[in-house]
Amino acid sequence: MVDWIADYIDGPGERPVFPKVNPGDIRAQLPEHPPAIPESFADVMADMERIIVPGLTQWQHPDFFAWYPSNITYPSILGELMSSGLGINAMAWVTSPAATELETLMLDWMQELLGLPDRFHSTSDTGGGVIQGTASESTLTAMLAARWRATDGAINASGDTTKLVGYTTSESHSSIEKGFRIAGIGTDNMRVVPHDEHFAMRPDAFATMIESDLAAGLVPFFVVAAHGTTSSMAFDPTPAIAEIAHAHGMWVHVDAAMSGIAALTPEHRWVNAGLDVADSYTTNPHKWMGINFDCNLFWTADRAALISALSILPPYLASEAAQSGAAIDYRDWGIPLGRRFRALKLWFSLRTDGVAPVQEMIRSHVDLTQQLAARVTADDRFDIVAPHPLNLLCIARRSDSIEQANADTDALTEAANAAGIGLFTRTVLDGRSVMRISIGARATTSTHVAAMWERLTEIV
Amino acid sequence: MVDWIADYIDGPGERPVFPKVNPGDIRAQLPEHPPAIPESFADVMADMERIIVPGLTQWQHPDFFAWYPSNITYPSILGELMSSGLGINAMAWVTSPAATELETLMLDWMQELLGLPDRFHSTSDTGGGVIQGTASESTLTAMLAARWRATDGAINASGDTTKLVGYTTSESHSSIEKGFRIAGIGTDNMRVVPHDEHFAMRPDAFATMIESDLAAGLVPFFVVAAHGTTSSMAFDPTPAIAEIAHAHGMWVHVDAAMSGIAALTPEHRWVNAGLDVADSYTTNPHKWMGINFDCNLFWTADRAALISALSILPPYLASEAAQSGAAIDYRDWGIPLGRRFRALKLWFSLRTDGVAPVQEMIRSHVDLTQQLAARVTADDRFDIVAPHPLNLLCIARRSDSIEQANADTDALTEAANAAGIGLFTRTVLDGRSVMRISIGARATTSTHVAAMWERLTEIV
Repeated sequence: MVDWIADYIDGPGERPVFPKVNPGDIRAQLPEHPPAIPESFADVMADMERIIVPGLTQWQHPDFFAWYPSNITYPSILGELMSSGLGINAMAWVTSPAATELETLMLDWMQELLGLPDRFHSTSDTGGGVIQGTASESTLTAMLAARWRATDGAINASGDTTKLVGYTTSESHSSIEKGFRIAGIGTDNMRVVPHDEHFAMRPDAFATMIESDLAAGLVPFFVVAAHGTTSSMAFDPTPAIAEIAHAHGMWVHVDAAMSGIAALTPEHRWVNAGLDVADSYTTNPHKWMGINFDCNLFWTADRAALISALSILPPYLASEAAQSGAAIDYRDWGIPLGRRFRALKLWFSLRTDGVAPVQEMIRSHVDLTQQLAARVTADDRFDIVAPHPLNLLCIARRSDSIEQANADTDALTEAANAAGIGLFTRTVLDGRSVMRISIGARATTSTHVAAMWERLTEIV
Repeated sequence: MVDWIADYIDGPGERPVFPKVNPGDIRAQLPEHPPAIPESFADVMADMERIIVPGLTQWQHPDFFAWYPSNITYPSILGELMSSGLGINAMAWVTSPAATELETLMLDWMQELLGLPDRFHSTSDTGGGVIQGTASESTLTAMLAARWRATDGAINASGDTTKLVGYTTSESHSSIEKGFRIAGIGTDNMRVVPHDEHFAMRPDAFATMIESDLAAGLVPFFVVAAHGTTSSMAFDPTPAIAEIAHAHGMWVHVDAAMSGIAALTPEHRWVNAGLDVADSYTTNPHKWMGINFDCNLFWTADRAALISALSILPPYLASEAAQSGAAIDYRDWGIPLGRRFRALKLWFSLRTDGVAPVQEMIRSHVDLTQQLAARVTADDRFDIVAPHPLNLLCIARRSDSIEQANADTDALTEAANAAGIGLFTRTVLDGRSVMRISIGARATTSTHVAAMWERLTEIV
């Protein structure tokens, strides 16, 4: 099976990037009931080949330009395999000391490699980091810590969220609104701060909204600054946002789920500008760094608020090591209790591959994006509708009317997907339909991008 | 590495079950900074052998009697490996059709194998299931669906939780209180219903508390019935609880995280009694079924409430397949957006091993527990302090005073752990210190249990 996986990874372009299936097609090929007697592993692998793999969206395909990348590398796969084989639970130090300590060390290594502020380091007075599953969970976790701090801890007992209001833009990720819902704050209390023409938050509008909420007797407690929004990879101005937010005691969370990893290359370290004034930060090695999903990193400069918000200590989870303060119990740093040994993936990768191959890949993807941008610019049938400093290009068809342009753009995205030119996702930026071209698969080369653009322009 | 893992699994008893380490010992053996140049994989494996594995709590060890089991089997490890190698994301049907459809099928297979009500089947009018990471997440998810239904959906926008009250016992899992906190309801609004002498919820007390809350103008919305509490594996009487709860429109969630899997054996199917009147249910194949962590199953009879509570549809996540209702987007069935292809672990196991080995293991663990109970009963230095129908035995020292008994019991647990007789966890039942003996590792045989008891009685 290891060989099978190696072949799969080495030949990602052999299958259509999106399967030609309709809902129900896969299930219809599988038995409705579990087998009465055991089958051979060969039979299972045959069904993998014949039914499952052809029914998957091929995230490793060189023509995968959808959503965001989900890169994998051999060391990280082996790290996950090792984690599965050990079968331990990393919920607390005492449930597996080495898993906890290696996790802390990996966060510290990544703090160094990404050039993050020292106040996120585990040896800092008040900060530290944790591996979570997804940025959705990290954002919710940040919100819960912020909520605890804004209420002086009263929230844990009272659940009183009635006066809390938070802030973000329409361009930030849907997980933020989902977090406001889950935390019992509600969409009505999530202020959507206007953005500028580059889809970044307007600090002046943010300040005005806060004043208005304060005048209404509300408590502004939390703002999410996106470093790389989902739709267009826009960067909110965290230094200006934090200055305003901190004047009112608010928590500043920076969501760099996709783009933050670019800071592994010194020339792109600007993606994390302003983190020295952020209360928390998240980025995903499972997107653009080759660490297989899931591996989300979350740091905070206020671990006391985080732990106070989430720690519950029944007798069956108590341990001397944690109560003395000498050990970390990561169960108190996120939503789930049980936790996988995810640090191994990072450790295996950082030791055997190092960051040089990731830097090379990031640089290549950024170059490919800029080369494609030059081609799009030279074609008067298209507009580039957002800044594209990294690896995402947002394009739209030109037309006399916005309605026609939108119809043309959506038709092109659909036609490109149907023809198998690649897999693309659609978004909307200020009412304008957009075709997102995310260049982030490890297998994608200039040949693939050139061929994709040539075929796209043929079907316009 | 596959061979290494096979050796590790075949020789789980060769290391101490708990490492002789203090906080910081592991990290002190590892470099503080990432390597400047790549190292060989052999070097990493050498450090695994020398530093990491000796620093782990050995959950697969035959003398592991702590917390709960975390069994692994070869097919499930291979399923996880395959998932890592494919590198796809199962957040929505369109992001990997086969992953979604196989997941749905696995929930249906498990519904059949566990003998769960048909209303949890994916083809039922209103129900269905999903794989989540942990029971913590499933319980929170159930709470959010309940909250949505109790407020006719108003909660999503308003975040108004002020009148909501939920119910459980002091014996249910800490994740329930954590869920009440996260959801912005608060510990003050979590009613702790008194339990009977067997640590099960008292329906009469539950009814009285509801009346009192209604009289105060509050809205009872949610009750968690534990089928197998964490401390003592007590079973709350779900049919009686549900009759009361449903008279007031409440949501009944059944948490059978540890014990529910026992229903794979027909003679233990009683563990799920009352599910025909539950609104949601969760159990963990990653505890007692050999599916490596994480693999939590969650079913609901009201998928509309669940999806309505959690669905947010930005344009970049929209798809025709899901909007038509023909496909499931599992991102709307839980907290995280991104999701691993966890169905493979179940599929590989159910096809190549089937449930017979699991049934055999469960029967063996239950037998070993009953045999041990007979020995404890015959020893007048000990009490068995809770019913033990399955694989958990709660014992305590006898003494004239409760203080002395508690001191003796705690001393014994500490001494047993320090001597490496096994790994045991402590809990407290109605003020009484308890030594929990959880018999659930695949490697544990009658020889191990007999030796453990002999050594324990020697050090009393």
